[in-house]
Formats: sequence, C-alpha cells, structure tokens
Amino acid sequence: MKVAIIMGSDSDLPVLEPALKTLEEFGVAAEVVVASAHRTPQKVHDFVSTAADRGVGVFIAAAGAAAHLPGVVASFTTLPVIGVPVNCTSLGGMDALLSIAQMPSGIPVATMAINGAKNAALFAVQILATADPALREKLADYRRTMAAEVERKAAKVTASLNK
Amino acid sequence: MKVAIIMGSDSDLPVLEPALKTLEEFGVAAEVVVASAHRTPQKVHDFVSTAADRGVGVFIAAAGAAAHLPGVVASFTTLPVIGVPVNCTSLGGMDALLSIAQMPSGIPVATMAINGAKNAALFAVQILATADPALREKLADYRRTMAAEVERKAAKVTASLNK
Amino acid sequence: MKVAIIMGSDSDLPVLEPALKTLEEFGVAAEVVVASAHRTPQKVHDFVSTAADRGVGVFIAAAGAAAHLPGVVASFTTLPVIGVPVNCTSLGGMDALLSIAQMPSGIPVATMAINGAKNAALFAVQILATADPALREKLADYRRTMAAEVERKAAKVTASLNK
Amino acid sequence: MKVAIIMGSDSDLPVLEPALKTLEEFGVAAEVVVASAHRTPQKVHDFVSTAADRGVGVFIAAAGAAAHLPGVVASFTTLPVIGVPVNCTSLGGMDALLSIAQMPSGIPVATMAINGAKNAALFAVQILATADPALREKLADYRRTMAAEVERKAAKVTASLNK
Amino acid sequence: MKVAIIMGSDSDLPVLEPALKTLEEFGVAAEVVVASAHRTPQKVHDFVSTAADRGVGVFIAAAGAAAHLPGVVASFTTLPVIGVPVNCTSLGGMDALLSIAQMPSGIPVATMAINGAKNAALFAVQILATADPALREKLADYRRTMAAEVERKAAKVTASLNK
Amino acid sequence: MKVAIIMGSDSDLPVLEPALKTLEEFGVAAEVVVASAHRTPQKVHDFVSTAADRGVGVFIAAAGAAAHLPGVVASFTTLPVIGVPVNCTSLGGMDALLSIAQMPSGIPVATMAINGAKNAALFAVQILATADPALREKLADYRRTMAAEVERKAAKVTASLNK
Amino acid sequence: MKVAIIMGSDSDLPVLEPALKTLEEFGVAAEVVVASAHRTPQKVHDFVSTAADRGVGVFIAAAGAAAHLPGVVASFTTLPVIGVPVNCTSLGGMDALLSIAQMPSGIPVATMAINGAKNAALFAVQILATADPALREKLADYRRTMAAEVERKAAKVTASLNK
Amino acid sequence: MKVAIIMGSDSDLPVLEPALKTLEEFGVAAEVVVASAHRTPQKVHDFVSTAADRGVGVFIAAAGAAAHLPGVVASFTTLPVIGVPVNCTSLGGMDALLSIAQMPSGIPVATMAINGAKNAALFAVQILATADPALREKLADYRRTMAAEVERKAAKVTASLNK
Repeated sequence: MKVAIIMGSDSDLPVLEPALKTLEEFGVAAEVVVASAHRTPQKVHDFVSTAADRGVGVFIAAAGAAAHLPGVVASFTTLPVIGVPVNCTSLGGMDALLSIAQMPSGIPVATMAINGAKNAALFAVQILATADPALREKLADYRRTMAAEVERKAAKVTASLNK
Repeated sequence: MKVAIIMGSDSDLPVLEPALKTLEEFGVAAEVVVASAHRTPQKVHDFVSTAADRGVGVFIAAAGAAAHLPGVVASFTTLPVIGVPVNCTSLGGMDALLSIAQMPSGIPVATMAINGAKNAALFAVQILATADPALREKLADYRRTMAAEVERKAAKVTASLNK
Repeated sequence: MKVAIIMGSDSDLPVLEPALKTLEEFGVAAEVVVASAHRTPQKVHDFVSTAADRGVGVFIAAAGAAAHLPGVVASFTTLPVIGVPVNCTSLGGMDALLSIAQMPSGIPVATMAINGAKNAALFAVQILATADPALREKLADYRRTMAAEVERKAAKVTASLNK
Repeated sequence: MKVAIIMGSDSDLPVLEPALKTLEEFGVAAEVVVASAHRTPQKVHDFVSTAADRGVGVFIAAAGAAAHLPGVVASFTTLPVIGVPVNCTSLGGMDALLSIAQMPSGIPVATMAINGAKNAALFAVQILATADPALREKLADYRRTMAAEVERKAAKVTASLNK
Repeated sequence: MKVAIIMGSDSDLPVLEPALKTLEEFGVAAEVVVASAHRTPQKVHDFVSTAADRGVGVFIAAAGAAAHLPGVVASFTTLPVIGVPVNCTSLGGMDALLSIAQMPSGIPVATMAINGAKNAALFAVQILATADPALREKLADYRRTMAAEVERKAAKVTASLNK
Repeated sequence: MKVAIIMGSDSDLPVLEPALKTLEEFGVAAEVVVASAHRTPQKVHDFVSTAADRGVGVFIAAAGAAAHLPGVVASFTTLPVIGVPVNCTSLGGMDALLSIAQMPSGIPVATMAINGAKNAALFAVQILATADPALREKLADYRRTMAAEVERKAAKVTASLNK
Repeated sequence: MKVAIIMGSDSDLPVLEPALKTLEEFGVAAEVVVASAHRTPQKVHDFVSTAADRGVGVFIAAAGAAAHLPGVVASFTTLPVIGVPVNCTSLGGMDALLSIAQMPSGIPVATMAINGAKNAALFAVQILATADPALREKLADYRRTMAAEVERKAAKVTASLNK
Repeated sequence: MKVAIIMGSDSDLPVLEPALKTLEEFGVAAEVVVASAHRTPQKVHDFVSTAADRGVGVFIAAAGAAAHLPGVVASFTTLPVIGVPVNCTSLGGMDALLSIAQMPSGIPVATMAINGAKNAALFAVQILATADPALREKLADYRRTMAAEVERKAAKVTASLNK
C-alpha cells in the first residue's frame, strides 16, 4: 500500500521533505500532490476519492494557518488521515494545530506536532506495519538505530565535558 | 436577495437564533440549513453551488471546534461568506476563532466575534444594503434605536445610583 | 462604488499593499488615508462620515496592537467595515486579532486573518459584486486563475520530485 | 476634583460597584455614565470633552470583549484614563486585557487587572492624592487598615488550624 | 486484532466511554487498563511490552494535565498509539493537548481533539481496516449512518423553524 | 515633583530610554535607579520608602519575565506606580504583562503595553499635570504635534501612492 | 526541620489543605502563616528572615493572580522555596503559573502545577529526605501505597467493565 | 552528594551549560547524561534507578516540546527532580512549560523558568545546602556577590545617564 502526501501549497514542501525521506528509508511508496482545500477543492475531492483504487492506504496532509486540508481530506475517505500542522503564520503554528486537532466527532484526523512531518511518515509506516511483518521488523530496527544514535551523541557530549 | 445560514450541527441553532431574529427584523429572507463540512460534504457542496440560483446573496456559516465549515463554504462560492466561531469546546471558542479567521490568501471569510451571530446578520444586511437604499435607511434607524436603548439603560443606571 | 482603505499608521502601508494591488487588478477604485483612532480621532470621524457621499461603499481598516481603528470606523458608518489585524507587537498579532474580532453586538467588523490585507480586498470586491455582474464574472475568473496557479506550482513540485 | 466612571454597557455596573464604594470611602466625588464607544460614540466624545470643565480630574473606563472604550476616552482627553478589562466573553477577559493594555505610543491607558475595578478607584485616589495631602493621609490609613484586616484573617486561619 | 485502551487514572473513564461503545459497535475487541505513567511506570511498561503477544494492534492512551502517558506508551512499542488529551485542569485541556501533540521526532503519537475519545476509537478502527475489508465496509456504513443522522436532525431544525 | 524610574536590570535600559527622552521633552525631572525586586530587595525598599521625601511624585517600574518589580514597588508606597512589562523571554512579554496587570485588590499598578515605556512617561506627566496647569498645556501641545506628525506622514503616504 | 507554608490570602487555605494533610502524614512539622507580599510586605520579610532560626528548612508559598509571593519569599532567603500557583482569576491560573515559573536568574522558585499543593508538600518532604533516611523510607512507602491505590482503582474499573 | 543532569537530546547542552558552570562554582559534583524518555527509555530507567547508589542527591532534567523527561525521571525516584523547560519549538517553550509544570498529584517536579538552567543549578545547591552548612554559607556569599554585581551595573547606568 502507498502513502499519499497532500499539501495545500508548494511552500509546504520543505516542511514535508523529512516525511518523503523517511518513507523512502522504509521502502514505502509515496504519491505527492499539491492541492488546496480552498483554492482547488474539486481536485482534493477527486484525488482523495480515487486514492484507494490507486493503492493508497494512508494519507498525510499538511497545512498551515486555518489548515482545513487534513479535515477536508478526511471528509472524503475512511482511510486513516495524518495531519501535520505547518508553522507559517505569526502564531507559531498554534492556529494550524487547533484547526487540525479539534476535529468533530465522526471524522478523526491523527494530529502530529507542529512541523512534525517525520513523525507523520513514521506513523504511516506504523499503520501499514500492522499488517506487514517486514515493515514491523524495519520499525524495530529503526528504533534500535535511533537509540544507538542517541548513544553516539551522548558519548560525544560526555567526551566534550571531560575535555 | 436572501441570506443563507448554514450550521454544522443542530446544536449550533441556539447560537444562531439572534441572527434569524435580526434578519427578520430587517425583513431580509433567510434560508437555514444544517450541513456538516465533514459529515455531509456533498450536501454542503450542493447547497452552496446552487445558492446563487435560488437568490442567495450572502452566506452566514457557523461552526465550533475545528470549525472548517465557513472556509469550505467559501471554497465553493464567490459570494461573501460570514463566519461565526461557536464556543462549544473547553477552549472557549479560541479554536474556532483561529480556524475561521486565519483563512489563506484567495478565499476570504468575514469572521465575527465568538458566538457573534447577531453581528453576522447585521453584517449581511450591511452587505445587501450597499445596493438597497431601503435597507440602508433601516440600518440607520437600527443604529438610532440602539443608541436610544443604550440611553434608556444609562438613565436607569443613573436613577439607581441616585436612589 | 469605491473602497476606502484606512490605516492607523504609515508603518502599516507595506501590510496593506497587497490590498491596493488586488483592488487595482479588479479595477475597483480606492481611497487611501492614514488616520489614527487615537491620535487623530476627529480626522477618522470626518473621513468616515463623509465617505458615502464621496462614493465609498466599503471600508478596509487595518491596525495593530490595541487595534481600535476598525471598530471606531464602524461606529461612524453603516457601510460594511473589513478589519485587518496587523502583526506589529511581540504578541504576533493576537492582540490585534482579538481587538478586531471581539466587537460587541450591534457594530460588526468583518475580521480577516492577521496581515490578511489581500483577502480584505477580495472580500470588498465580493461585497461590491453582489450588485455588479461584471465584478462577479471577474471574481469567477480570479478563482480560475488562482486554481491554475496552484496547478502550475503543483506540476513544478511533481517535476522536482521526479528528478 | 471628581472621578468620572464610564462603562460601555449597563451590564458592567456590578463589576464597577467596588469602584463606586471605594471612592465613597475616600470621600471622592464620582460621576457615572453609561456610554458606548461604538453605539453612542458622540455621547462618549461629548461627555469626555466637557468633563474637565465639570471638575473631572481622572477617568475610569470599563469595557469587555473588544473593549475599545478606555482607548477612545483617552483619545479625547489628556486627563489620566484608567482602564478596567471586564470578563464578559468566553475568553476570560484576555480579549479585553489585550485591547486595553496594548495601546499605541502617544495615548496611554492605565490598565488594571481583569475586573479590577476596586484598584481602579484606588489608583484614581492615588493620582488625586499627589496634590492633596488629606487624601494621601487617607491612603496611608487605608493601607494600615488593609494590613490589619490581613492580620485579623491570618489570626483566624491560625486559630482554625490549632483547633 | 484488539485495541488496548490505557488511561492514567480511573477518573478518565467517563471520557473514554464513547471509545468503548464505538469499538463495540464495530465489533472490535478491547482491552482496558488503568495504569499511570508516573505512579505505576513498571505496569505501563509491562502492559505495553507484552500487548502485541496478546493480539493488540493499536493503543488508545488518554491522559490529562502533563499527560505523558501516550508518549510513554509509544516509547515501549512500535504499534500505533492514539492519544486523547483529557480536559481535567483549569487550563481547559490545552496542557494535555500540547504534551501529547508536541512529541519529538522518532516517536509519533496520533493526537485527537481534547476529550475526543470517540474519534480515537474510529481512528483505531480505520487503522485496523487497512487490512480488513469487512471493517472497511462497516466504516463506510458508519459514514452513511452519520450523514443520515445529520439529515434527520437537519430536517428537525427546518421543521422547527417553519412552525 | 519628580518621576522615579526603576528597572530590575541594566538590560532594561534600552526599553526605558523613550521614557527618559519623553520626560525630558516635558521638562519633568527624573531619578533613575537599577534595583532588583529579587536580587536587591532591601535597595528597592529603601529607594521607594524615601522617594517621597526626595520629591518623587510618581514611579515608573519596568521588568520582564516574572516581572514582580512594579508590584513590589507599589507595596512600599501609596504614590502612583506605572508598570512597564518588558519583552525579554521567549513568551513575547505575555508573562510580564500578566504579572504586572493582575495585581490583587488593594495595591494597584497602572500597566502599560509591552515595552510601552514612552506611554509610561506620558502617563506620569498626565498624573503630574492634574495639579500643574503648565504641564496640562504642554500635554495639549504634545497631542497637537502628534496629530500634525500623523498628518505629515499621511501626506507622504498619499504622495507616494499618487506617484 | 520544619516546613513553612505561607499564603497571600486566607482564601488560599482550601487549596493548601492537601499540603497540610500530606505533611502531617509524613510527620513533618509545619508552620502556617497568612502574609501578603503586597499588603503586609514587612510581615513577609520578618517571617522569612527569621524562619531558619525557628527550624524552617523549606518554604511552600501559594499565590494567585500576579502571584508575587513565592518570588518575594525567595528574595529573603536561600532556603528552597516551592511555589504553588493558585487558580483564582478568570485566566485559569495561567497568570499565576507564569508569574511564579518565570523567575529571573539568581533567585529560583520551584513551581508546582496550578493548585498543586499536595505535590508541594511531597517535594518539601523529598528535599528534607535528602538528609533524613527515615523520611526517604516513608517516601518509598508512599509510592508503594500510591501504586497499590492505582491498582485498587484499576481493578474496580476492570470489574465495572466486565459486569 | 552529586547532582545528576539529564537531557533528552544533545542539542539541549547549550541551554544547560549555565547549570554546569554554576554547580562548578559551588564545588558541587555533577554527572551529565544524554538519555531520551522516548528514544532510550530503558537507559533513563537504569540511570535514574541506580543514581542514589552513585551518590546522586538531586536530578536536573531538561527537555523541550512534549518534554516528558523530567516527569519520567521523577517516576523512577523519590529524590528531588528539577525540570527545565527548553525553548526549542515554534511555541516559545510554552509546550514544555506546561508539560513539566502540570505534573499529577503524587509525582512532583520542581519547574524552573523556560531555559532556566542556571536557576535549576542554584535550586539543586539550595536543596543540598539544607544539610550542608558550608554550602549554605556559599549561597549567602553568592547572593551578596549577585547584589554587588547589580550595584556595579546600576552605577554604570547612573554614570552613563549623567554623561
């Protein structure tokens, strides 16, 4: 199954790049599209409605400011939708965080941290892994590598303090 | 021209009643519909797309929490959309206020105060009045009446303090 | 009908420039004035009171910090007033947003996003278009152009990812 | 010199009663008026402009929500204006606090705590006392009485804990 | 696969009951446990570490205030963890929302709305449905029922307004 | 009468410089002292307690972060204390604003805008002017000059737009 | 060593009662005093300055609103001061939390949760236990009892769900 | 007794350096470790559980964003834990402040200001000093030096103003 990544504006691409990179690391295919909930609503509708048929299993939707995109995506599908609030206004992303997290009963969106695209990708992988033992193993490896990386940096800090 | 009032949930009706009453005072016809941006997106689309043909000139859209409805309405029409943030979560309406006010460039929504349905109706009348001298006169009367009402209450305060 | 743009300080001009440009694109005439609600209240009063006679149909008022200007303008007219909260303090425009959005019953101000001057102009055009079929057509064109622009940028993103 | 108390709505009177009572305790005369910055702007202008001639030396202005009244009063006078943010919306008075405190350079308003009408009266007395030795003495007495009151309550707490 | 529901305190149970009821409606088995990230950390560790072996596929973790539970659960598993911020302090759930949403890179938690337990259950079902066509069908039914319910209420509103 | 300016840290001096300059423009004498509510509490006590004897009539106290200084000054005197919240942490001055504005009943502090030192000076002058006709006249002049300055800038804006 | 509990107002007593009860459970002696940082500053100074001589080893200071008391206590002693923000205004205790937590460099205050008086007592015990093995043992017992209590409630939840 | 300093990420080291320097000034030994509550939970558990045996008397734990580390540390020990919220997201450290301060009853964490590492070290010294007269004396010296430093800077300000 693929992950569909949808962003409201091409200016959100740099925020989403860690998600693309992470999916690639896990060997999970991704479809990327720029489509605005407000400026191109029909395109969002068409892209989302047909996604399952193209093999999409999970959506990642990123948006800033009023940030309606993840909720609008979720209104057109029952596939899991992961929302990434983007920090692009003077309110530090608090506007996007509330717009994405406070979805009404019936239409859930899984909200990540502000600019938390990497975690969106990891969460998409975790969803796909519930039915894919090979991905599950890769996730376990990822955790081990991450812990080793923390250890490597920790050792550097210790070394620098003992200089 | 009519005003279309759209709310995401029937529980928003009490908040919107001052809008209905105000439009009635001004003799402006209203269409009221319950339609959810997330639970019945097609209904929202159809209601909004055909509204101009039914004589609708202005929209009032009320929603709480993630509060995407006004923005979604605005994405389907170039008629003016007035948004009313509804206080229905533990955040006092701040979530709805930001979701409605922080709309991206290109798709404006005219945001009112939290639970400010009466002002939404007045603003709808002000819009219609730009091309309707009779409504303009009613608005001037309304202001005078309102000022007189403040005066009447002011006199009562003065009287109570001099007792 | 003209749009009157009023700002509390000349330092708000850069924030308002997208509004001027947008009105120009739509061929809507604009009057621009710097007048402070607090420092030159008489000027605000005189400018607003006489605006209808000069052909003004809609106001756009921008202000930051305590941001009383849009509300003060609205207190002197029953023409529609659109308020633009300006981000000019250490609070990221939250102060201005609340001061403009939370207007009391009776005197509405249509609040835009923080620094949302372009949308203020679009909303002014939408108001004027309710009685002007030519403007309505231009708005429809504008939406189409905007959607095409999103598409153009979307194609660029797709191309860059496939490199 | 008198203190002028101005409130935007008769519903603010209960919040202001501690101010009236405190001024009375100090024997300072008060003028009370209900006048709305937005609904009766001319009345505010006239009341404020003529106040000095009626012997007013200090203003106390209370308002909630957008809370423009104190700033509008300040725009019409160089007498000191004390602003009281009133908690009357779902935002707990934060809207009024920011609208009153964040006044632009040139037109100061002395902001009190949310619903802090008693302190507004005390501050008005402190201002008048700068030129009135008898009031200064009363303020010193007031502090002593207040300290004694804290002591009396403290003794009660101690007694209750030793029971 | 089962859903494990973990709450930090028995006082969170009323908030979670809609999740239990929703899972039951979908015929998805649930394990419920009270275990505190801070008061019984070993129990959390043991419960989470062994959950996959008991057939758990998804976690729902609810917590208020500092609300570390969802993040702590996520640190012990690579199964998807859905976090529900509980409104149980004077800050309206904002504290819990930020503690759950702002997880660091590497350990995602899917944050729902404040007190959004029903959506947590729906999202868990959506995750399980990615590999379960029968659940997918039930989700589609659920959406249709929900839309019909909105329609039913909408009709009631229309009827009440036409009385 | 003099104005005493007290700041908690020498790093607050740049924020206070507009206050010094403004007092100088009005010919009002100022005493400036650096004294910390927490690091040199005895110095604050001694400076404030003896200030009246040195001819001080009003205090301006500036502080950031926990910003207790204005309240501590007010606890030692019944002279008017004007508080200036300083923006010096990652919270944009919101911490200082609340610490200064939310004073308890009995001990008022007149809160200015965040970094609003110039208005603190103007307000101090307004207080002193209640008993000083010459200062009153200077304040009226200041307002006129300020209005003229707004006009001058307004003309520049108009000119630049007509280019 | 004793714990000194100081509160700014007798109205804070109900918030502090869990602290008194907790200290009693641990057999730690407490001194309780009502003394206001602003209304009775000399009493605060005298109580704090002489506390070490009376055997006080730790302070717990509770205050709401501007909440300067913990910081003022800390300015008079180098003994550890634990601050409890009290929720007593319309801002839900956020004002007190920021005023207590954001202390400047040099004068620390250990901030607890809003209304977190029980944890203040536990933290005081933890401080005293660093030099008191018997207290350390009691703390370990307390943790075990607390875990058992969570278990007891967890069992009740499980039982209620299996009914 | 030693102080254990634990940080969730090596990127927090610059924020913690003032703590290291301060402990060194007081001659208090420190153990520094990088260990993540979420990425290396076992390491946190092992480091904290064995710390008392290595002579650790107090913990300083620093973390940003969801900032669970201080609470997780506290769940494994009854030694005092001091939490430092780190400003490392777009929310200015407010997320970390709430996550650390709002700990539930039973497991206290002593919260410092955002980025307040120096005060964390001072507070650790104050804790250790409750049983160490030599440290108490050093703390008294530190206060005197700090006051002298304020005085030195105050004199510089006075000198610069009299130039």
